[in-house]
Amino acid sequence: MPNLTQALRRFIVGERLPTARAMHERLPKYLALPTFAADAISSSAYATEEVLLVLVLAGSGALRYSTAVMLCIAVLFTIVAVSYRQTVTAYPSGGGAYIVARENLGLYPGLIAASALLVDYVLTVAVSIASGVAAIISALPILAGYRVELCLVFIAFITIANLRGVRESGKLFAGPTYLFVASMLLMLVSGSIRELLFPGSRAAAPQVPVEQPLTVFLLLRAFASGCAALTGTEAIANSVPSFRPPESRNAATTLMWMLAICVVLNIGAAGFAQAYHIVPDHLQRETVLSQLGRTVFGKGVLYYILQAATAIILTLAATTSFAGFPRLASILAKDSLAPRQLANLGDRLVFSNGILLLGAFSALLTVVFRGMVHALIPLYAVGVFISFTLSQAGMVRHWQKLRTANWHFAAAMNALGAVVTGVVVIVVASAKFIHGAWIALLLIPVLIAVFLKIAQHYRSLATALSTEGYAVPRALRHAVLVLVPGVHRGVVSALLYAKSIATEPEGVFVEIDPAETPKVQEEWYRLHLGIPLTVLQSPWRSLTDSVIQYIRTVRAERHVDLVTVVIPEFATTRWWHGLLHNQAGLMLKFALMSEPGVVVTNVRYHVEE
Amino acid sequence: MPNLTQALRRFIVGERLPTARAMHERLPKYLALPTFAADAISSSAYATEEVLLVLVLAGSGALRYSTAVMLCIAVLFTIVAVSYRQTVTAYPSGGGAYIVARENLGLYPGLIAASALLVDYVLTVAVSIASGVAAIISALPILAGYRVELCLVFIAFITIANLRGVRESGKLFAGPTYLFVASMLLMLVSGSIRELLFPGSRAAAPQVPVEQPLTVFLLLRAFASGCAALTGTEAIANSVPSFRPPESRNAATTLMWMLAICVVLNIGAAGFAQAYHIVPDHLQRETVLSQLGRTVFGKGVLYYILQAATAIILTLAATTSFAGFPRLASILAKDSLAPRQLANLGDRLVFSNGILLLGAFSALLTVVFRGMVHALIPLYAVGVFISFTLSQAGMVRHWQKLRTANWHFAAAMNALGAVVTGVVVIVVASAKFIHGAWIALLLIPVLIAVFLKIAQHYRSLATALSTEGYAVPRALRHAVLVLVPGVHRGVVSALLYAKSIATEPEGVFVEIDPAETPKVQEEWYRLHLGIPLTVLQSPWRSLTDSVIQYIRTVRAERHVDLVTVVIPEFATTRWWHGLLHNQAGLMLKFALMSEPGVVVTNVRYHVEE
Repeated sequence: MPNLTQALRRFIVGERLPTARAMHERLPKYLALPTFAADAISSSAYATEEVLLVLVLAGSGALRYSTAVMLCIAVLFTIVAVSYRQTVTAYPSGGGAYIVARENLGLYPGLIAASALLVDYVLTVAVSIASGVAAIISALPILAGYRVELCLVFIAFITIANLRGVRESGKLFAGPTYLFVASMLLMLVSGSIRELLFPGSRAAAPQVPVEQPLTVFLLLRAFASGCAALTGTEAIANSVPSFRPPESRNAATTLMWMLAICVVLNIGAAGFAQAYHIVPDHLQRETVLSQLGRTVFGKGVLYYILQAATAIILTLAATTSFAGFPRLASILAKDSLAPRQLANLGDRLVFSNGILLLGAFSALLTVVFRGMVHALIPLYAVGVFISFTLSQAGMVRHWQKLRTANWHFAAAMNALGAVVTGVVVIVVASAKFIHGAWIALLLIPVLIAVFLKIAQHYRSLATALSTEGYAVPRALRHAVLVLVPGVHRGVVSALLYAKSIATEPEGVFVEIDPAETPKVQEEWYRLHLGIPLTVLQSPWRSLTDSVIQYIRTVRAERHVDLVTVVIPEFATTRWWHGLLHNQAGLMLKFALMSEPGVVVTNVRYHVEE
Repeated sequence: MPNLTQALRRFIVGERLPTARAMHERLPKYLALPTFAADAISSSAYATEEVLLVLVLAGSGALRYSTAVMLCIAVLFTIVAVSYRQTVTAYPSGGGAYIVARENLGLYPGLIAASALLVDYVLTVAVSIASGVAAIISALPILAGYRVELCLVFIAFITIANLRGVRESGKLFAGPTYLFVASMLLMLVSGSIRELLFPGSRAAAPQVPVEQPLTVFLLLRAFASGCAALTGTEAIANSVPSFRPPESRNAATTLMWMLAICVVLNIGAAGFAQAYHIVPDHLQRETVLSQLGRTVFGKGVLYYILQAATAIILTLAATTSFAGFPRLASILAKDSLAPRQLANLGDRLVFSNGILLLGAFSALLTVVFRGMVHALIPLYAVGVFISFTLSQAGMVRHWQKLRTANWHFAAAMNALGAVVTGVVVIVVASAKFIHGAWIALLLIPVLIAVFLKIAQHYRSLATALSTEGYAVPRALRHAVLVLVPGVHRGVVSALLYAKSIATEPEGVFVEIDPAETPKVQEEWYRLHLGIPLTVLQSPWRSLTDSVIQYIRTVRAERHVDLVTVVIPEFATTRWWHGLLHNQAGLMLKFALMSEPGVVVTNVRYHVEE
């Protein structure tokens, strides 16, 4: 069985890598861009749609504000990216919001940033995959009935890809990301040319009834929804150590490239959606991007390439979270704020447990929200902007402490970022509060409480286990009991072993059926091992209860520190043999785990059949 | 956690009973009849329907043969019951077909009987529950969409009722069984009176198109399907020890009562179905019994009482199998032909594992056949008649060997039973072969092969483990390795323990992160325990691989018989603390299970927080 499990693991995860190869898992810029910027870039596939979905509540006339809203978002994007550029340079070892906030602002701001980021990483996976599936369903409406199932298949795929390691991810994902950017640009250019040559070819604006008046609050809500475009911006700053040296400079350049691509794609998409009078569908039968592609390309090869590239890059966008979440979780684990297993490097030098956890949470979210992007969006982006704000505020403190040349300028840049993103937090949280932002806001204090509880446990355990000033006890006195299920060679091995570790071991037989006892006793004394056999009554037919009762008696009466319970077992050659034997030893071991002063020893006899 | 599990178990299964109370779990006749005859009696709820469902293939005209077919079945029933009456007297300790066939005819006939019976016990549960649910759906058509779900709920209910113990079953089930018999008799009597007073009130015979010609083979198939009425006849013979003393006489009397009730109900139902021109529905939207009840009583209170009593007795009918299957399985287990766990008496003095196994198999069958009685019937009854034949044939040998007074007469009775049931086996198997009997026939040799394989395993294991002529080895030499995950009080306990069982124990530290090693070494030597610490490299970050490699080296180089691996653990006070620690010790223990020459010792340190 273990071999089968292992073979399966090798097949899914790939051959394991030695620790010494860790340094080699670095990415050049052209691979780092798709890997760490896929999230931010792919957001342009749904950001415009989310803006339109809010505006359309005020009727089709309100849709003409979409480009203006998107321009505001682009300005915000630039401020944030330039702000983060400084973080990348200042924190070459990876300047995630948690590290920056904790180092410069203290534990609690750090924990707020960490919780906010973890929540948003999970949402990024759920939103990206749901949006990718929406692109597929737009092109192939026949799949509309399998939205959730498709999402789960893609989440499983992306999880496995990430368990295989980050370098392979980069290679795997570069093609589709660049293809998406190219298709989008081609669409924007073709569309522009068409507009120049045949300015009259647009469809008439369709009429959508007004549900709500066009208020400033509605415009702010549209802006808040569109802010999903900024998610993933912090990924490059989090991942500086994954870049090839010089890490900081390469990361900063990549960040600027990402900004340029995102601004062009988002404004382009919003502008064309407005120009072509695209009306969004809140049931996501067809995405806005699909409508755009269909208008420009017609339903031909280019349209299908655009949809495929969109679906793939959105699926891959989740990679950004799969790099960020496990890395942040491992940092928290090393700081004793999260379970230590999250800091274990897996077979492929990635943090496997964090990857699996992220996969599981995002699958759960997908099932709960039925794979609908529009249902997930209100929860999204609040966390991201909280972490932006804390990170930039931390950078201001950082420059104040460091006082390098031009620190005033650097601090002012970050201060601008902090103030702007701080205002956005308030806008986003209040505009989307009742629509779902409250869930994200509630999760942050819950997570912080969990982190603190975990830290307290590790701390109190470390104190309880510390050898500092610990008077090492005198030698131990222990009694040895050998559990005798019957008399056979396996038991003889256990008895010989017991004699080798104690001068006066004792056999213990639990009587379930009184008719068997004399036979066992007779066979026992025929062994001539000079070990006494105690027979325990068991009126309730429970081996475990009788043995525990006897152990307590022995500990009390013989004044020993420990009782060693030797459990003889036999190892059989076939897996199904295990089904043919009472697993009483296993049950007993489980029960003895919570019994103090007991050492459980397994002597396995390997049967030669 | 164990306490919660235990509380749940107490709630479901009830307070456990001491072994000493086993004798008290005996049933008086008036409770034994519903408990062990419920299956046979309840068969009258579907036997007529199954006969009609075959006959109707030859058009509605063929339905007039139903009473004749049922009369043949009644004759067969009488022969079988009288035959079994002799078994009950001859085998006061329970004369199941397996025991009688094995004792008198040999191992293989015994195994055939046992396999056939086990298959039929599972089918009895599936058919009875499906038929009970059909009765409910007939009365409440709104439930038609939940057929399978309802079946599974009832199977779960009956399984739990049986885990609680047989006496309570008897009490619980007496009322409904007698209510069913009373309702059926009331229906038959009311119907007869109505016929006498208003002979012209019958509906006209509806016309059903002819699908097949009315051949002798079709009549035999109708007979074969109706033979399901006989299933459960052997239950009383299997359960003689559950009767109050004098067991045999009480069991024989109960058997005759059962015969009388069954004959009256089956012939009555068939006669009225013919008289009222009832046409069966192969989709089981309404059962034949429901149509009868509706015709006689109208859709009033009496009709609903009949349907409720039918549903309940059919659900309870499964109890007969829940008494028989675990008992037979435990007998096979005691003969080393089935897994030994099946012979364990549970908390309530019933064979819990057998009960759970039967519940699981019948649930599986229900899901596969979508809870349709008519789909399950072709698999049914073949096994029962095989076991009848072997049992009666065995009784003939029994009388030949014993030669008591009148043995010729007794042997002739059983010989008649054997021949008649033998012929029925051939009729049933060939008439229903392609409709599903082949599945039951195929399962029998498969089960026999499994039994023999299991017996061979137990035999070869007993030989391999036997102390007969076994030269008890010289004293054992063993090396002791203490796994050191880090230096803390739990490790100190383990080291002190190691010193108490060996003169030269050795600490082993597996280096995952080389940066930690000097710190561990320094803390180690500060303990001044005089134990050397070996540091193992682990290029693949795998604790398990490194430790196993080292154990092999130690065994090879130091010429020891055994290596004791002491694994320090700490027991924490809250269940969730377990999530916060690497379960590396657990993984290691699992891996060491298949490594020869290794003794695993767990020293648990109980943390006082």
